[in-house]
Formats: sequence, C-alpha cells, structure tokens
Amino acid sequence: MEEQLEISEIYRAAQVLRDVARHPVLIGPTRLNQEAQIYLKPENLQHTGAFKLRGAYYKISQLTPEERAKGVIACSAGNHAQGVALAATANGIRSLICLPAGAPISKIEATRRLGAEVCLVPGVYDDAYQKAIELQHEHGYTFIHPFDDPKVIAGQGTIGLEILEEMPDVEAVIVPVGGGGLIAGIAFALKQLKPDVKIYGVQAEGAPSMALSVRSGRREHLNSVSTIADGIAVKEPGLNTFEFCSRYVDEIVTVTEDEIAAAILALIEQQKLVAEGAGAVSVAAAMFDKVPIRGKKVVCVVSGGNIDVTILNRVITRGLVKSGRNSTLRLDVGDKPGMLSGICNILAENGANIISVTHERNSDLTSINGCILSIEIETRNNDHIAQLRKALTDAGHHVVH
Amino acid sequence: MEEQLEISEIYRAAQVLRDVARHPVLIGPTRLNQEAQIYLKPENLQHTGAFKLRGAYYKISQLTPEERAKGVIACSAGNHAQGVALAATANGIRSLICLPAGAPISKIEATRRLGAEVCLVPGVYDDAYQKAIELQHEHGYTFIHPFDDPKVIAGQGTIGLEILEEMPDVEAVIVPVGGGGLIAGIAFALKQLKPDVKIYGVQAEGAPSMALSVRSGRREHLNSVSTIADGIAVKEPGLNTFEFCSRYVDEIVTVTEDEIAAAILALIEQQKLVAEGAGAVSVAAAMFDKVPIRGKKVVCVVSGGNIDVTILNRVITRGLVKSGRNSTLRLDVGDKPGMLSGICNILAENGANIISVTHERNSDLTSINGCILSIEIETRNNDHIAQLRKALTDAGHHVVH
Repeated sequence: MEEQLEISEIYRAAQVLRDVARHPVLIGPTRLNQEAQIYLKPENLQHTGAFKLRGAYYKISQLTPEERAKGVIACSAGNHAQGVALAATANGIRSLICLPAGAPISKIEATRRLGAEVCLVPGVYDDAYQKAIELQHEHGYTFIHPFDDPKVIAGQGTIGLEILEEMPDVEAVIVPVGGGGLIAGIAFALKQLKPDVKIYGVQAEGAPSMALSVRSGRREHLNSVSTIADGIAVKEPGLNTFEFCSRYVDEIVTVTEDEIAAAILALIEQQKLVAEGAGAVSVAAAMFDKVPIRGKKVVCVVSGGNIDVTILNRVITRGLVKSGRNSTLRLDVGDKPGMLSGICNILAENGANIISVTHERNSDLTSINGCILSIEIETRNNDHIAQLRKALTDAGHHVVH
Repeated sequence: MEEQLEISEIYRAAQVLRDVARHPVLIGPTRLNQEAQIYLKPENLQHTGAFKLRGAYYKISQLTPEERAKGVIACSAGNHAQGVALAATANGIRSLICLPAGAPISKIEATRRLGAEVCLVPGVYDDAYQKAIELQHEHGYTFIHPFDDPKVIAGQGTIGLEILEEMPDVEAVIVPVGGGGLIAGIAFALKQLKPDVKIYGVQAEGAPSMALSVRSGRREHLNSVSTIADGIAVKEPGLNTFEFCSRYVDEIVTVTEDEIAAAILALIEQQKLVAEGAGAVSVAAAMFDKVPIRGKKVVCVVSGGNIDVTILNRVITRGLVKSGRNSTLRLDVGDKPGMLSGICNILAENGANIISVTHERNSDLTSINGCILSIEIETRNNDHIAQLRKALTDAGHHVVH
C-alpha cells in the first residue's frame, strides 16, 4: 500500500483544497468526558455537511483531461453524492449520481442543486451501485469510489494535517469508520508525522465490518447492517482501507444505538452542533469510555451533520424520555366526573405540563366501570416524576405505571 | 453617551477577552437568502452557549479590588447567569445569581457548575430581580447588569471588531435585540470603524420594546411579552442601550413566531447549528426579507444556542408538519373489519410510514355506526401527501381532512 500513498500527496491535497473546503477549527475543551480533554473537529460544518467533499474533490482534481472530458459517476444515498456533485461542478466536469429511488427527497434535491445529473434506480443501494457500474462501462465515465481509492484517502487525510497543525500535542484521535476512507487518511497522515498519537476507530454495533475484519485479519462481509448511523452502514471494508486500518489504526471499537443517540443529544445540548449518527459515533465512544483516553488530550472527528430531521426528532424524543423530561403516567381511575380535574390540579401544583390525555375504557386492567387515564407530561427530571407519582398516590390515586 | 464609551475601550475589552472567550469564525456563504451573501457569526458556539460571557467577563475584569472582594450579584434565568458565573469564577470572585424558582433545572445546574452560588426566588423574573437588588443593598455586592452598562456593552462590541477583521468588506450586520446590549456594542464599534456598514436589529413580534421605543423616540415599557425567543423577551430597553440604538442602528424590525421557528429549523438542516429562538431572529429577518439586503454581503449574528430541547422538539415537529413530512389524515370509514387493513395497504404501497392510528367513534362527523380514523404518517413532502389522498380517494375512501 505504501507505494500508493505518500505523505507528500496529503500535503498536495491540502494545497488543492485550500480555497475549496472549509477548515473547521477545533471546538473545545468540552465536558463530554470528565476524565479527558475532548476537542471536536466539526466536519459537519464542512460544505455539503460532511468531510466527503475533501476526498471527492482531490480525486476529481487529479483526473486527466480525457477523464475530465468523459465525466464522472458515483453511487451514494448520502454525503458522497453531494461531495462528488460539488467537486465535479467546481471543476467544470459533468457528474452523474446513481441514487436508490427511495432516497430522501432532500438528498436528491441537494445533489441536483450542486449540479449533478441524478439517476434514480429502483431498489436499494446495491441496485444503484450495479447501475452505476453498468453506466460506467457503457459510457466510459470515471467511477469515483466513496472510500477505497488512494486519492480519496489522501483528501480525507488533510483532516489529520489540520488537527496536528492546530493541536501539535494531540494524544489521541477518534474517528468514525464506515468503509474506512476517513480513518485511513487521518491515520496514515498522523502516524507518519507523529507516530505516538493513538488512532481509534468507531463503528456502530449493527455494522461492525471493519472492526471484525481487523480482528480476524481478513475482510469480512456482512449480509445485513442496521443502525441509525446510516452513513457508516457498510457491509464490507475496501481493499485499500482494510490495509490502512490494519497497519495504522490502534483499535476499532463499537457503540450501541442508544449510545449514538445519547451522543447526538449531547452534541445538540452541550455543543450546539447537529451531527448525524455516523458523525456522532466518535463522541459516543469518548462519552461511554470505549477507548483508553483517561487524562489525554483527544480529538473526536464529528464527520457529518446530514441527519434527517425525522430521525433527529425521534432521537430527541427518546432522549427526553430517558432523562425524565417527558413521561407518560397511567392511572386507574373511577369513571366519574371530577377525576381528571383533581389529577390535573395535582400535576399543575407540582409544575408538570400536560401534553396529552387519553382515556382507555376497554383495558384489561380496568374494572367494568373503571378507566385507565394515560397522561403525557413534560417534567424536569426523574426526581420530578417520582415527586408527581407520590403526590398523586398521597391524594388517593392509583398510578399503575 | 459618547463620554461613557470610546472605541479604544472595545479594543481593550478584546485584549482582555483574547484567551477567555472563543472567537467563532464566520460560517458561509450560506443559502439562507438567495438574493444576498449571508454569513453567520456563530456565538452559539461561544463558551456557555451565548455571547453574554463577553460583556460579563470584561465588566468583572474591570472591578476595583474592593468591589472584587465583596463579590458580584446578577439576576437572570438564562445566558447572562452562566456568563457572570464563569467570568466571576475565572477572576477568583464570588458570584451570587438570583433565578426565578421555576427556571429549568438544566440552567440552574449549569450556573452552579460554573461556580456561582444560586439563590432561587419564588415567582417570576421580576421577583428575582427585586431580590437581587435587595441583596445588593444589604451586602454591598456589585450588580452586573445584563445589558445596560457601558462596560458590558464594550464587551459585546468585540464581536463587531471580529466581524470587521475577518470580513473588511461587510455591508450589513443583523443582530438580535432584547435589552439591546449586544447591538449597542456591535453598532458602536462598527459605525466608528466603518460608518457605511448598515446595522439592523431584530426583535420578536411578541416583545418589540426597543423597536417601539426607537420609533417613538422614548423608552416604551411593555406590560407583557410573549415569544419562544425567551432570551430577548425584555419589557423595556435600557437607558444606555436605547441611546446607542437611536444613534447607531439603522433600523429595528420584528419577526413572527413561525418565522423564528423556520429559522431555527433552517439552521439545523442547512448549517448543522443549534440556535435558540433569540439567536435565530437575525437569520429569520434575513430569510424573510425583513431588511434591505439584496445583493449585499451580510453577517447575521447568531447570538446563542441554549434552547430547551423540549422547545426544540416542538419547533422541529411544527417544521415537519409545515413542510409536509409529518401529517395526519382523517378518514370517515364504516365501522367494519378490513377497513384499516385496506387503508394501511394503500399507505404502504405509496411509501408512507404510519406513526399512530386513532379511531374516533363519537365524532359529530360520523354516522351512528361510522368512525373517524385518524392516521399520523411520515411523508416526503406536500406532493406526497396529495398523492396519498388521491390514492385513498381513488380506492373509494372518504378523506375528511
């Protein structure tokens, strides 16, 4: 692999990207882990909302005149599509992006707006990928791989240079891993320039292809992947990226869906940053002690922020419930006038805000003329909920759940 | 007023704040308004999540040894509390913050964590303010006003210096206005250094005290204020800030609650930034053409990001409904087996995701054995909703709403 990439090429990529990519400065120190100094490299603030622009742009800038004339093709349901579209348009090159037909309208529109021609392919990602390969062979386009290409890896590696330039005494860098292009570039750059810096990769528990591959020593293929971190839901590492990770990455760990959701919420509440699931796994690993960083100066790469607001809404809702700020009380009440009024008074006196009230009259739990009252409330925390339960119980109400 | 503040003091404040405050770099150009180049000054990324730290820190740094020994007091339910707490602790000074007892636990805890002693006062903000004044007189603390103090104004003015240093050709700056400290500082600094730059202030329609005051030429007092932008819900401008605004601000406009919500959502989706309502009003004014910025290079100050996630959740939900990504269909159906199954099939075939289903049997709209089926679904956009309605109607269903 070393023949394919030299540190000089990453400096060249940085030069090419100087006026094209944003160079988001580190944010921190944060309080995301009390035992370490955690800084963030916010690539969610990059153009197109993710780091992908860097690799795609450098790759496209290095094409021969013949390749440029024929145009480029890529397949992606997400950040790579927008990175390629913007990079091609900025270089005056035609781009064709194959997307699965069910991709979110917002991503399709964003890709078009950046100047790409969009080809919607019925089916899932794999179908779109096959279509892209077909079209490539038919028309001679250059295929821009989302991660397994040394030029793409060199582009992502510029993030490593920026981290080191801004924080020469960095001790560990934590990087999200899907196909592995981002961590390959960053790890290669940092291990060349400062070999004692630790590089940790993070995958979602539901898509641990690189973690398994590095452990077993050969590329493992997963038949299915499932995670809210859709940007790193990759079934198999690349040939190049697998080699880079095996050689330069110290450890690859996994985080759960709940840990990812907690990291997204912490970034919103504490750092005012919107991260997508894939972008937040590095922070999740730091928050939940998945990597040995105690006492260290650490950079978490937040790789992207293109989260669907529907998903974001669910993450916040779940976080509110978990932290006791939204809850549903169920009470077994007699079906007679005045009951609801009394309960509402108690909730009001104790500072709870009612969101919705539902009467369930056919529940197995209730007597024939009883009723289960289900009240969704906004609360301050779990102690507040306990206080409300106690006040209701003290007043003679029967809280069933 | 000019005797009270000179441009040199703002440079001095910048010097004092050099290693204390973050200096968030401008983000942009954005696509928040198609007719102008909109950049953001993201003070939501400032320590404590808001610009308030700047003024509080500079003010506190200028206290005499006697004043420092006695400690400081402030009254705030929000960002000013945390700014004063951090600034006092960093200067080795005791701070006491009066908060209304109903303030969000998260804000109380954040203020304590920054080293302040917290005094919870029963009642609302005005009660907490009275208590703070009492305690000040009793113990000789220095009262740190949230906005109406030339030193505080000088601290906020450092934002003006930073904008001009980074973008010397800026043509207009849009600034949220509550009490007016932020815009007073920025407008004073910029009009001294580059008199042709336009300064626009923005208030919430439900709390337009400075807008009304500047228009009438005297300080207007509002009896009540109501807005999701709680950080700028101020009943009366300060004496100093009113003078500064009258003299240096070109125009103060207002935005509606829906415009504020749309701006919050646009910042999340397009810029990956979390802004509180008060922080987003500048962006709302730019998005909804409230200020004459066509063709200009503009900076919107996003003043803070401390939004309660409960509010954030509501803003997102409302945004989803407005953009057609969440909707509720109501159908008048016969109350017999198989109806729901048929409807679900149609929704599934057309790519809608069902969130909840409610049967209303007692509605006025229904015949005696009819039923209103209320189905909440996730959809792609308003066209998608129209397509679903058509598919249901074509299959003989009666969509009532």
